Amino acid sequence: MSNNNCPLYAEDLEVGTRRHLGTYEVSEEEVLEFGRRWDDLPIHTCPSEAASGQFGGLIASGVHTMAMNQSVMSRHFISRLAIIAGKGIREMTLDHPVRPGDTLSSDVEIVSIELRDGRADLTTRVSMVNQEGQQVLDMTGVSVIRRRPQS
Amino acid sequence: MSNNNCPLYAEDLEVGTRRHLGTYEVSEEEVLEFGRRWDDLPIHTCPSEAASGQFGGLIASGVHTMAMNQSVMSRHFISRLAIIAGKGIREMTLDHPVRPGDTLSSDVEIVSIELRDGRADLTTRVSMVNQEGQQVLDMTGVSVIRRRPQS
Repeated sequence: MSNNNCPLYAEDLEVGTRRHLGTYEVSEEEVLEFGRRWDDLPIHTCPSEAASGQFGGLIASGVHTMAMNQSVMSRHFISRLAIIAGKGIREMTLDHPVRPGDTLSSDVEIVSIELRDGRADLTTRVSMVNQEGQQVLDMTGVSVIRRRPQS
Repeated sequence: MSNNNCPLYAEDLEVGTRRHLGTYEVSEEEVLEFGRRWDDLPIHTCPSEAASGQFGGLIASGVHTMAMNQSVMSRHFISRLAIIAGKGIREMTLDHPVRPGDTLSSDVEIVSIELRDGRADLTTRVSMVNQEGQQVLDMTGVSVIRRRPQS
């Protein structure tokens, strides 16, 4: 990837490149707040009910886990791209519960770049692990980015 | 689906059932707020930059669109199930931009129920459309739910 101030176009990316995206600290307050707003189920929003349940405590909503990943991905990767928009997800698995107190760490790999007229489909695979090295999220997604303008 | 006060177990669900999940009003304030917190790109967070860009205005983050869908899905469907946890997404496409002022409407269909020991994998497909009937999100996801306890 280049080091100048231009955004990264499709032609600047290389299949197989991996990049560390940074870490994310999960607080109980945020698990409860996100859950109440977007996914109000006891496993995300009721500590006492969650404590006696399947996971022995609160776990983050799957959408919250995706949002945490997006925040590091957006800040440390997508913001550098000549991005047009997100297009979708090929596959996403929630492999291990995300709990308050976890420190999560994401890495992205460029899986494919399909050039089309003026734009390209960029497929990336992101792996997010917790402080024990357990993978919590594995997601292959597709975004549309611009090709380098003809000079 | 039954009408008593028990949660719906795997045995209470039927493949092919469709259910309307309700509607969601998208405000500009929320698009900006969610974007700043989770996906801080100009297309979600800078009205003037977005106005001169690809979509002629702000569009909601893909994760925000998923969260909006989750809020109606959680309230009107998942909260009635004997849910254990979300497991993943088989496929998700963002088919049309979500814009401030949109009224979105989601429907869910039960695609498959795979029974295992004590639990089941429940695969659902959700379609979210805007006020013009344009599909904005199409998502096939898998959750784990409990089977009916043996009496």
